[in-house]
Amino acid sequence: MLDPLITLTTDFGEDSPYVAAVKGVILSVNPRARLIDLSHQIPPQGVGHAAFFLAEALPYFPAGTVHVVVVDPGVGGERAVLLVEAAGQRVLAPDNGCLTEFLRPLPTPPVVRRVTEARFWRPSVSSTFHGRDIFAPVAGHLSLGVSPDQFGPLTDSWVRLERPEACAEGADLVGEVVFVDHFGNLISNIPAGRVERPPERIEVAGSVLPDCRWVRTYADVEPGRLVALTSSAGLVEVAVAQGSAEERLRAGVGTAIRLVGCRR
Amino acid sequence: MLDPLITLTTDFGEDSPYVAAVKGVILSVNPRARLIDLSHQIPPQGVGHAAFFLAEALPYFPAGTVHVVVVDPGVGGERAVLLVEAAGQRVLAPDNGCLTEFLRPLPTPPVVRRVTEARFWRPSVSSTFHGRDIFAPVAGHLSLGVSPDQFGPLTDSWVRLERPEACAEGADLVGEVVFVDHFGNLISNIPAGRVERPPERIEVAGSVLPDCRWVRTYADVEPGRLVALTSSAGLVEVAVAQGSAEERLRAGVGTAIRLVGCRR
Amino acid sequence: MLDPLITLTTDFGEDSPYVAAVKGVILSVNPRARLIDLSHQIPPQGVGHAAFFLAEALPYFPAGTVHVVVVDPGVGGERAVLLVEAAGQRVLAPDNGCLTEFLRPLPTPPVVRRVTEARFWRPSVSSTFHGRDIFAPVAGHLSLGVSPDQFGPLTDSWVRLERPEACAEGADLVGEVVFVDHFGNLISNIPAGRVERPPERIEVAGSVLPDCRWVRTYADVEPGRLVALTSSAGLVEVAVAQGSAEERLRAGVGTAIRLVGCRR
Repeated sequence: MLDPLITLTTDFGEDSPYVAAVKGVILSVNPRARLIDLSHQIPPQGVGHAAFFLAEALPYFPAGTVHVVVVDPGVGGERAVLLVEAAGQRVLAPDNGCLTEFLRPLPTPPVVRRVTEARFWRPSVSSTFHGRDIFAPVAGHLSLGVSPDQFGPLTDSWVRLERPEACAEGADLVGEVVFVDHFGNLISNIPAGRVERPPERIEVAGSVLPDCRWVRTYADVEPGRLVALTSSAGLVEVAVAQGSAEERLRAGVGTAIRLVGCRR
Repeated sequence: MLDPLITLTTDFGEDSPYVAAVKGVILSVNPRARLIDLSHQIPPQGVGHAAFFLAEALPYFPAGTVHVVVVDPGVGGERAVLLVEAAGQRVLAPDNGCLTEFLRPLPTPPVVRRVTEARFWRPSVSSTFHGRDIFAPVAGHLSLGVSPDQFGPLTDSWVRLERPEACAEGADLVGEVVFVDHFGNLISNIPAGRVERPPERIEVAGSVLPDCRWVRTYADVEPGRLVALTSSAGLVEVAVAQGSAEERLRAGVGTAIRLVGCRR
Repeated sequence: MLDPLITLTTDFGEDSPYVAAVKGVILSVNPRARLIDLSHQIPPQGVGHAAFFLAEALPYFPAGTVHVVVVDPGVGGERAVLLVEAAGQRVLAPDNGCLTEFLRPLPTPPVVRRVTEARFWRPSVSSTFHGRDIFAPVAGHLSLGVSPDQFGPLTDSWVRLERPEACAEGADLVGEVVFVDHFGNLISNIPAGRVERPPERIEVAGSVLPDCRWVRTYADVEPGRLVALTSSAGLVEVAVAQGSAEERLRAGVGTAIRLVGCRR
């Protein structure tokens, strides 16, 4: 039998000992666990960032993988810890909406539990580090084969983040930036499948981008050119070939994007 | 039998090939080793940072784990390489004090050896990269089951870092910041267990923090508020809810902290 | 039999979901793969940086390791994906020169294939994320034991980066910075083996470094002093003991280095 996979996604950074403590606790509960770092560079308290990140990461993992998500500004407060089974994945996450985008497209509703059974937690639980004291030992026990129903009761209430929806206005599509990646590419909420023809022009934050070409990939233009294209997540993206659109356009999450004349 | 765990803690960063070389050498000696990254973001030459980090990380690992610590400004000079057995952990580290805080609270003295047996090293040892040439192959052999006494002689002399001690002054507790975490939380050397009642006020660097509340967790206040609380390491911490106390207060390691009127 | 090792080297950073997606796809193809992060902090589109990095990292790994390299500004364009067998390693990389320095010193020519067999790819291949859609599944299948010749035809044409060569001028050696490491050490293209005696003086960008000593290791001088020495890769390096030569000298890749009077 394969040793179980447990992934980790946090906003802990790597200069602090928090990731290390989580790993130690998991391995102390289940020394066979295979730990996979997804990211410890989610921006601090970046629940929205985590939501996009998880939607583009979790679906690629083998069925049965346990995912530990600790982006948790509400730690120690009223928010629940959730154990979610969906699309074959098993996810531990704070109930703050960080799973919204992962769950949104799924054809069947997830099975969601509130993690309440303290017998699986560390004997002493701090009020500021549930990653170490609750998430890690629960992930360890889950990976040992403890049935999800042992960790707490089902719930059908959990936090969803609001998401701005792209919309059509005449021949235009209008949306906004929902994620800025490591390269400074601006990823919008406009599904590329709704673009029926190359836009006549592209507006970012209300200004027309001069010379922005609609392309298939970055390498279709010389380095430094502005382009719009289909992102690897199937969304419209504004980028600078071998550069940063974030810096060039001083844009970020929430910046308006308009594709003028892209619909028939 | 379980494949052995070897953790890595360095100040190498991830843009340089040094972490990769260490991993390659370990796996060439013991292809079964399971490598666990603790951090490669210890600040360059940050021995004091590493000392705090290791104290909050190593104790959580299963007994028998091998820990490789390479924060080593003295590489190639007179400093020894130590192999330390303590609290069930086995640690390879330069003799520069980086294990001070890990070892301090232990009830029994550690077994400490100087790593001198060159037959376990790489055949050619550079004077600037002992991580690759000494620590990595020794960790590999240790994880293969070579007995610690094979690597060098016992010693009872090793470097300890001085640590500022918190102290009581009348009804106050006085200490200083000893660690700043990734979130900008200021962690002091004041044991939270010595706080007998919520302080009347809190001074940082000699100035009273207006409106700083003593709380149980960050979520007890609205985002942006200054708080003081018990850190996950059991020390008094000054933080900004969903913000950075480091930036807000322009404080850092060594900044004075005073809890006024917290003792009966 | 040992579970196969697959290393990852990318410029993806860790704030984006790209590394996670690559890991998920590999593990979905081969759930037994053992993933080893080498770096996700190669500078964006830093092909030259990757070339130095890989030369100092790959040779240390056990024979048979699969290395996935995705520093790929040409993604989706005409550049090929290569599968290279060399020095016992198996490397998947874009054909952009990033393997130049790894391959240069090898005594026997590598076996190089163009990855063309789409049956090993993800069913739908994006034009901007071949790491996920081609490299990851090919690495997974390779690690499962699929023979390299299944992935595509042999080629003897691939991109090599130009490399500036150090040269002798009278009693001097003249070269330039080819890599700046995480500590700000300036690593030149001058082989330390060509230095016959300590240089009389050292010039960086045409200016003599006052007080720069030729030493064996950083710890030979007090912190803050400029030194020149043999790097762990056997090249001449200019450094500041416990400091950053990059910052002190405002130098970088391409900065001229002259060792005056170091040859007999």
